[in-house]
Amino acid sequence: MPARADSGSGTGTGVWFIGARGCVATTAVAGCAAFAAGLYGPTGMVTESPAFAAASLPALSDLVFGGHDTVDWPLPKRAEALAEQGVLPHGLVRAVHRELAAAEEEIRTGGPMAGDPRGDEELITAFAADIEDFTRRGGLARTVVVNAASTEPAPGADRLPASSLYAAAALRAGCAYVNVTPSTGIHHPALAEAAAAAGVPYAGRGGKTGQTLLRAVLAPMFRQRALTVRAWSGTHLLGGGDGAALAGSTAAAAKNAGKNRVLKDNLGALPEGEVHIDDVPVLGEWKTAWDHVAFEGFFGSRMILQTIWQGCDSALAAPVVLDLARLAARAHEAGITGPLPALGFYFNDPDGTSAALAEQYDELLAFAATLREPR
Amino acid sequence: MPARADSGSGTGTGVWFIGARGCVATTAVAGCAAFAAGLYGPTGMVTESPAFAAASLPALSDLVFGGHDTVDWPLPKRAEALAEQGVLPHGLVRAVHRELAAAEEEIRTGGPMAGDPRGDEELITAFAADIEDFTRRGGLARTVVVNAASTEPAPGADRLPASSLYAAAALRAGCAYVNVTPSTGIHHPALAEAAAAAGVPYAGRGGKTGQTLLRAVLAPMFRQRALTVRAWSGTHLLGGGDGAALAGSTAAAAKNAGKNRVLKDNLGALPEGEVHIDDVPVLGEWKTAWDHVAFEGFFGSRMILQTIWQGCDSALAAPVVLDLARLAARAHEAGITGPLPALGFYFNDPDGTSAALAEQYDELLAFAATLREPR
Amino acid sequence: MPARADSGSGTGTGVWFIGARGCVATTAVAGCAAFAAGLYGPTGMVTESPAFAAASLPALSDLVFGGHDTVDWPLPKRAEALAEQGVLPHGLVRAVHRELAAAEEEIRTGGPMAGDPRGDEELITAFAADIEDFTRRGGLARTVVVNAASTEPAPGADRLPASSLYAAAALRAGCAYVNVTPSTGIHHPALAEAAAAAGVPYAGRGGKTGQTLLRAVLAPMFRQRALTVRAWSGTHLLGGGDGAALAGSTAAAAKNAGKNRVLKDNLGALPEGEVHIDDVPVLGEWKTAWDHVAFEGFFGSRMILQTIWQGCDSALAAPVVLDLARLAARAHEAGITGPLPALGFYFNDPDGTSAALAEQYDELLAFAATLREPR
Amino acid sequence: MPARADSGSGTGTGVWFIGARGCVATTAVAGCAAFAAGLYGPTGMVTESPAFAAASLPALSDLVFGGHDTVDWPLPKRAEALAEQGVLPHGLVRAVHRELAAAEEEIRTGGPMAGDPRGDEELITAFAADIEDFTRRGGLARTVVVNAASTEPAPGADRLPASSLYAAAALRAGCAYVNVTPSTGIHHPALAEAAAAAGVPYAGRGGKTGQTLLRAVLAPMFRQRALTVRAWSGTHLLGGGDGAALAGSTAAAAKNAGKNRVLKDNLGALPEGEVHIDDVPVLGEWKTAWDHVAFEGFFGSRMILQTIWQGCDSALAAPVVLDLARLAARAHEAGITGPLPALGFYFNDPDGTSAALAEQYDELLAFAATLREPR
Repeated sequence: MPARADSGSGTGTGVWFIGARGCVATTAVAGCAAFAAGLYGPTGMVTESPAFAAASLPALSDLVFGGHDTVDWPLPKRAEALAEQGVLPHGLVRAVHRELAAAEEEIRTGGPMAGDPRGDEELITAFAADIEDFTRRGGLARTVVVNAASTEPAPGADRLPASSLYAAAALRAGCAYVNVTPSTGIHHPALAEAAAAAGVPYAGRGGKTGQTLLRAVLAPMFRQRALTVRAWSGTHLLGGGDGAALAGSTAAAAKNAGKNRVLKDNLGALPEGEVHIDDVPVLGEWKTAWDHVAFEGFFGSRMILQTIWQGCDSALAAPVVLDLARLAARAHEAGITGPLPALGFYFNDPDGTSAALAEQYDELLAFAATLREPR
Repeated sequence: MPARADSGSGTGTGVWFIGARGCVATTAVAGCAAFAAGLYGPTGMVTESPAFAAASLPALSDLVFGGHDTVDWPLPKRAEALAEQGVLPHGLVRAVHRELAAAEEEIRTGGPMAGDPRGDEELITAFAADIEDFTRRGGLARTVVVNAASTEPAPGADRLPASSLYAAAALRAGCAYVNVTPSTGIHHPALAEAAAAAGVPYAGRGGKTGQTLLRAVLAPMFRQRALTVRAWSGTHLLGGGDGAALAGSTAAAAKNAGKNRVLKDNLGALPEGEVHIDDVPVLGEWKTAWDHVAFEGFFGSRMILQTIWQGCDSALAAPVVLDLARLAARAHEAGITGPLPALGFYFNDPDGTSAALAEQYDELLAFAATLREPR
Repeated sequence: MPARADSGSGTGTGVWFIGARGCVATTAVAGCAAFAAGLYGPTGMVTESPAFAAASLPALSDLVFGGHDTVDWPLPKRAEALAEQGVLPHGLVRAVHRELAAAEEEIRTGGPMAGDPRGDEELITAFAADIEDFTRRGGLARTVVVNAASTEPAPGADRLPASSLYAAAALRAGCAYVNVTPSTGIHHPALAEAAAAAGVPYAGRGGKTGQTLLRAVLAPMFRQRALTVRAWSGTHLLGGGDGAALAGSTAAAAKNAGKNRVLKDNLGALPEGEVHIDDVPVLGEWKTAWDHVAFEGFFGSRMILQTIWQGCDSALAAPVVLDLARLAARAHEAGITGPLPALGFYFNDPDGTSAALAEQYDELLAFAATLREPR
Repeated sequence: MPARADSGSGTGTGVWFIGARGCVATTAVAGCAAFAAGLYGPTGMVTESPAFAAASLPALSDLVFGGHDTVDWPLPKRAEALAEQGVLPHGLVRAVHRELAAAEEEIRTGGPMAGDPRGDEELITAFAADIEDFTRRGGLARTVVVNAASTEPAPGADRLPASSLYAAAALRAGCAYVNVTPSTGIHHPALAEAAAAAGVPYAGRGGKTGQTLLRAVLAPMFRQRALTVRAWSGTHLLGGGDGAALAGSTAAAAKNAGKNRVLKDNLGALPEGEVHIDDVPVLGEWKTAWDHVAFEGFFGSRMILQTIWQGCDSALAAPVVLDLARLAARAHEAGITGPLPALGFYFNDPDGTSAALAEQYDELLAFAATLREPR
């Protein structure tokens, strides 16, 4: 039976990770346990700020974790590796070992694995059964499926991408769905009908944790000040699995689509410039994003803004994942279905229409306010 | 008689610069003429965006320029020097020579000059007379006094600072007043009563054209994302008169107050860190601001954002000055008096309470909407 | 007859540019004339420093310019365009108009042009005849051929690249040859025999004017301090013809080979990391190179050096071109033949073996000393 | 009796730290033990490179540590604190606990402490006795005194600064002396006679571990390429004791003197620009230095180089300290006396005359070669 972080409360909320042994999921599980135990503050978790106090979100201590993965390196080992890199404090990994082991117990083998003979339908059925089993055995009120996997093998011509197989399984299991990667997931055309019929909320895609976050405040600044942006160039260095997965891949193209969209939507047109994503393995979880913005003032005078963002990918993404899992679970509980444009605040390539962070934040707060209503 | 840029229209609006032969005033005069003549677009002028189309602002072609200065280097010469520096295009300076010469004709000697025997009251009277004479001879509907001087001599113990003498003169002449410098100006306690009684609108202080502009969008981002800012350090290199005036002066302290306030108001508390303002004469009008923000993610993991802003001071400040002159003139016409908190969008250290640029922009648009009402 | 900058002296030295109407060649012609006329100092010209005073280099006033190009936009027009961009001062372009026009008179059509029916041998013969005619008519002692073209069309499978056609012509005309581009030029295997037999000196390739220059001093620093470099990544933004030519081309691969070689030769092994070259047309001649170096200290502690180089390509390359033309001409006069490894100081991908700038500088000074010998 | 790291060998070499419980000394002790035990490689230790193999330097396993300090926080505790900050690996601190404890045993109380009644002469005598006792009890061949203290209280008008008291004690005890701080130390005029008479070698001052290291390779680059540097500005953020000690102190002035000297000596004249040293406690041992260099190319075109150095102060300084202790001990053994200009490679403000790192490196290698002579 899935372990409950807080066995005293009534009904828990499941969080089912795609990529459950990855850095982001591991950091989220560890962070949730550490915060619930009072070991660390809620840095980075917007849902812990006062504006969300009345939104009836599930308590962090009520979250129960499980998931799919295709690697078999256990989650507590991953946590130790993250501690070696300085992402997680060594003491923390020891302190939350029980919770890490509990989550590890609830991880099932994903797919398709190399040489896997199963077809798409077979895989979806198996994945959905895993999720339903997790929810039932844990006595959970509901489960949110969160895609936090760093990569997906390119599908064969007539196959769905792996991320979409998992999304289809989430729909079949009646779960809310969140995609914090640039993978296709629920946005695949073949899932459109099922997504509309499932009666669940979903949101994506790509966690906004660095370069795009900055662009979502800087691009509106240029627009509001009537300064013309002529070129916006950038380079993103990252290691870890994400660097290897993204560099030169179709996933990078998807990620870049988000980076470009934030510029186009805020500036009215896409300026010159490219974005590069480089895999630099020695950087590990520590990513660096350099942006170079050529803009014009009066008389076309040439000016430059450069930004350098040095962040820890998992430490930025994990609180976003916890926020999203809580919000999606609550939306599901409140009977909200379909895409959640009010969560655009969190995504590189959101379903909503606002592209400026300040507007997205206002929409998020308004959404939190609607969750307060008595049901 | 003051020359009108567009002699065909009815009643003009005066713009009286303190520091009328300085870089910002010169660039504003040249830019206004160039835009009115269709030579350049409105880059940097927010009041030319559609949201202001119905606000009944004075046309740029209806602005008439004059002012005080204590140097006698003529304004057309200053424009040529700015062209040598690459701030103004050479062709532009030739094209708007007539308008530059017309503004030069309306510049009167300011003060107090070295060895000036006149006391504060005498100076205020003389300055007010200059302004009134300008307005009367030009047949202007009204005049806005804009402090764009780069520096002010430290006053004697029992004297008002020069910027406050000019502000008092503006009040006495019944003019709206705008202060785009960090000087004291109308904020001096000795002027409080006159400001309240004058029945004119006023706004200030410090044009938000670089480092503080960035801070006004980045600090809210950290707050909204619940990321803890631990230290915010910065260095500002600039030449021109402004660099010399600011470096190590009380004016720098005032400027820093604005830079700190934007952090404190947005983040709730002032983080560690200092701001340095260096005079680097060879940089001329081209200023560079480096900011280093140490922030924390999950588990206190250490992350860094750095920004480098390389801008042309006059080319950034001049459109702000024109925007403010138009808005203040229209507010005066509409009978609005006292501080104009809705103009906080433009200032480092504003009268308003919002510190986030997005909110300040919304307030500015709302203010523009109120100006639409029939008079 | 080619105009001599200084008709009083005895025998002149020809400088024949491949890409004679390009930015670098135009800036070199203008800069040579401006310096000879005393209008500007020798900034960037190493051969004007005291260590070269006794090296019997041709005087700048004795250089005579001509060349090939495939565009027909006249060189004085190019100079005006460079003044618009702020590369050349407007006044300078007027002051040296006579010299620019004289160089324009000596430009011949290069090739192969689109649809050109001529084969390689025919083109080489025609190019060599142009160069010989220039030398003869001008009564020049000798001519140095300098490849300063920004790009070369990819050759057909059985054709030589254009840069190698010009190099072959230089050899046939008995001229010293310098290649400041990353193009193949004289390094093509098909030219090896002719190069060995021609009895002329030659040098290349790729002018070291930015990112590689920095790497040539920073990489030795890490090596000498026994600090381990783990990754060296970079992005290079540039506009102008060079940006368009380099982005994504085989020329970029050649340029990157030089950038990598400086790391490998100095550090012993190539660290992780990539280099991107982006075409950003709005930047024009102003290029920006960002480098990110991840290195280790004691106990593998992770440290970072980042550099940002913002330079004007032509203003950096033109003095290098003039230095190289003088040195190659003098080497030719002194009877030195074959590759000139002592000029590695100037090149991204030099013929010499030293990769550290300090050693390359010492080799250059030693070479200058050998040129002092009586002939 | 002082513990010997390698009790099997004949005569050991003492390293007596001023500031023995500080970050640099602690890291040096831990690093020496870790390297001697084969736990880590020699990153950052130049004396472990092949060029020093024949220089008869004392083995790292033969170094014995002790010192003075005025704080009583034990050195193993400091090591744990450094591990918390990520400077030392946690496992390392456990592995070398014995060596840390042995060094702690040999730390004596320094001075003058607050309210210390002892005069300068009394303190010098006491300090010298401590050092002699350490050398005698350990059966050491000789001891090198290394000033690695982060700060010194400003002396009274008629008192020597603390760093000079320790330096005088080193001279009296007949020890070689090395100063890796910007403090006065042996350079005080009152010590000149004793330094000349003592017959020991000495070197200083200020470990070159960041901004000045970069300047020592970049300034020569500009000079060699004949590019004119117009302004060189910088800001240095650091926490730890060093940040607090340096910010706004006379020590900062001394440190800046070194930073300026490297520019003046390399460029011929000091360009415009200032250096700021800010105490930012949250940065701890992780220091950041931003440099902004405004330089000119052909025709005075304005170009900019910026560098950002993010390093761990102790991890950079500790290998330098070990190098210097070995070299000074060997010089002492070889009968070399007085200042050691050949060690300028390591110092911000060296005794030697070369200011370019490449030349300093050549001098260091030449010095190593002289140490090969049979004794």
